[in-house]
Amino acid sequence: MNAEIIAVGSELLLGQIANTNAKFISSQLSELGVNVYYHTVVGDNAARLEEVIAVAEGRADIIIFSGGLGPTKDDLTKETIASHLGAELTFDEIALTYIEGFFERLGRPMTENNRKQALVLAGCEVLANHHGMAPGMILEQNGKTYILLPGPPKELEPMFQFEAKPKLASHLTDGAVILSHVMRFYGIGEAELEVAVQHILDTQTNPTVAPLASDGEVTLRITAKVANEQEATALIDAKVAEIQAIVGQFQYGINDDSLASKTVETLLAKNLTIAAAESLTAGLFQSELAEVSGVSGTLVGGVVTYNQQMKTEQLGIAPELFAEYGVVSSECAAAMAQSVRAKFGTNIGVGLTGAAGPDTHGGQPAGTVWIGISVEGQEVQTYKLQLSGMRNTNRLRAVKFTCSYLLRLLNEK
Amino acid sequence: MNAEIIAVGSELLLGQIANTNAKFISSQLSELGVNVYYHTVVGDNAARLEEVIAVAEGRADIIIFSGGLGPTKDDLTKETIASHLGAELTFDEIALTYIEGFFERLGRPMTENNRKQALVLAGCEVLANHHGMAPGMILEQNGKTYILLPGPPKELEPMFQFEAKPKLASHLTDGAVILSHVMRFYGIGEAELEVAVQHILDTQTNPTVAPLASDGEVTLRITAKVANEQEATALIDAKVAEIQAIVGQFQYGINDDSLASKTVETLLAKNLTIAAAESLTAGLFQSELAEVSGVSGTLVGGVVTYNQQMKTEQLGIAPELFAEYGVVSSECAAAMAQSVRAKFGTNIGVGLTGAAGPDTHGGQPAGTVWIGISVEGQEVQTYKLQLSGMRNTNRLRAVKFTCSYLLRLLNEK
Repeated sequence: MNAEIIAVGSELLLGQIANTNAKFISSQLSELGVNVYYHTVVGDNAARLEEVIAVAEGRADIIIFSGGLGPTKDDLTKETIASHLGAELTFDEIALTYIEGFFERLGRPMTENNRKQALVLAGCEVLANHHGMAPGMILEQNGKTYILLPGPPKELEPMFQFEAKPKLASHLTDGAVILSHVMRFYGIGEAELEVAVQHILDTQTNPTVAPLASDGEVTLRITAKVANEQEATALIDAKVAEIQAIVGQFQYGINDDSLASKTVETLLAKNLTIAAAESLTAGLFQSELAEVSGVSGTLVGGVVTYNQQMKTEQLGIAPELFAEYGVVSSECAAAMAQSVRAKFGTNIGVGLTGAAGPDTHGGQPAGTVWIGISVEGQEVQTYKLQLSGMRNTNRLRAVKFTCSYLLRLLNEK
Repeated sequence: MNAEIIAVGSELLLGQIANTNAKFISSQLSELGVNVYYHTVVGDNAARLEEVIAVAEGRADIIIFSGGLGPTKDDLTKETIASHLGAELTFDEIALTYIEGFFERLGRPMTENNRKQALVLAGCEVLANHHGMAPGMILEQNGKTYILLPGPPKELEPMFQFEAKPKLASHLTDGAVILSHVMRFYGIGEAELEVAVQHILDTQTNPTVAPLASDGEVTLRITAKVANEQEATALIDAKVAEIQAIVGQFQYGINDDSLASKTVETLLAKNLTIAAAESLTAGLFQSELAEVSGVSGTLVGGVVTYNQQMKTEQLGIAPELFAEYGVVSSECAAAMAQSVRAKFGTNIGVGLTGAAGPDTHGGQPAGTVWIGISVEGQEVQTYKLQLSGMRNTNRLRAVKFTCSYLLRLLNEK
């Protein structure tokens, strides 16, 4: 079984909003093992909509529509499908009662065009809308499944997840279980990772192994489709072990982990506190950690010392250090890490100094970064990066590399 | 002239990412007066990609592709187009040199598959990629315009805006000049703004006026399409004046301004230095300012004091203040702003304290934020926010409101 998702709405074609509905529905369908081969977006135009329906019928078993179920003249999805299939539109009494009640609760008069929202395709299963007025529909005809959903994501998402998906699952009779597992890597490029596991990618069948890169991170998604969950887990575990044997040193987490969430989780598990002194990142490292709820159990705080004078005044770094090694140096990063750890009384101190770009800084080219990590009772560690991105990509990469080095250090202990 | 946008990538069909490229390109094309009638998404599959190209050729003049230009075997957009059009692929020497240099600067070996990224369609105009390796292409053939762009938004967006769009504009020969001007607002909701300028929105023709909201900001895009630039500017200026008379107090900038860039620009113009003490935002305010190149002329640094003890130890705030007013209070925000200004010796100090969520903090509900701004020689100002978003939306909103209040204060002087 394969599906096509057709989003209807001129606001998508004008670039006012992104098609997040297609993303949501696709991720839900992948859990059901339904392959999605196409997304289509078309405007509020009956002729063009009917054409894309005909194209979709030629290549998909399940056609899912989002948008165009509302009260205005622009909303013409169900009217166009009805005309295309030669189906009638009839009032759904439950939906009509709900819509009338909606206006009553609001204390506003119901304009006539709102009644139109209760019209459904004759013979369909109606999908209740608990977050808006227009109901959804599932219709089986000529061996195809048509699913109509409202456009607003806060209506579409719960309707698909709780109304359409269970009905669709019961239509899919092959009984297979689909399990996915994501391995997350940092510090290795996409091409480099693919070369390293090329023989696995070339021979993958079940489970499948798919690489994806974004923001300097690379993931491998491993998906097994078999008769039962136990068998799927066994297939995935074996593949994970095979991959870890090759590039395990670059893996920092799984599934929904982020570098920041994994760092905070590890610090909390080990009962360690942390402080940071930041120059080029100017607070971004601390802010990224603070995105994680519960971070107050480990993040005490820190300083931003954006210029050399503040590194001396706030952190007590001797001007002689700058004269000898420069402000962008292993020695400066180490001193920042040690000083902020002492100043804030934490187990771990992090120091970040560098040239974010576009200009050189402290005699170093743009993209040069030094990271210092001071762990209580251990020798301070420093790491050099030579990045090649734009200013803010470099700043974010510096933060992500800091998390990945910190994680390795914590996991070594 | 009308366009279709074809995004290539199985990660889109799996629901791992949304098709933000189609949104971006569509909004850019609407500025050029090009109608977009369809978006299509197809996976990394040559046969299906070739089918959607054939469908698009039947209904669009301009076909824009995103994705599938990378180094891996999955990347097959240009190979499929070449095969479909009977075109050759040839190495672009400039791109090849750039890619080799990229690996050299990184100090990493270049694997062979990366060379493939320098292959371009014979006879095309090459679009330089300043943020990644794969170049883009424009090809005219059989009366159609084919534009190929890389998938990562940070590569695609500048390439489209600065390389493809000007070339496309010069291909569009109707002789009209299209000028756009964006007014940027903060501190007013989209619905509220629309109601205030409803009569302008209802009667707009040329120039057109289009509202757009994102991340708490609202913009109005004013677009004039006339015979010459002078006339376009006059039309836009008149409309801007009309809008400013109604909601001018909420406007903070124009075009590509951001709240952070406008704040840094204003501070630099007034020759003022700034420091910040941050609690719930944990460095995000300083980091947002530091996104702006040249910020070192005004941002000196600051502290993150994530817990109450650090507010006392690092900023010298008396424990009695917390006992009397709480840590999330006007008094605490004011004390943080004043203390960090003194400690870092700047003209301006900012203090941020609050409950980011999901939990209450300092006896205040999630979303309560106090902002303190201390300007040298003036009485400290404080501002309260009651936000209703998720944790990280609240943290970002707090930073944006801080910039907007600071801008108003600076512009009053």
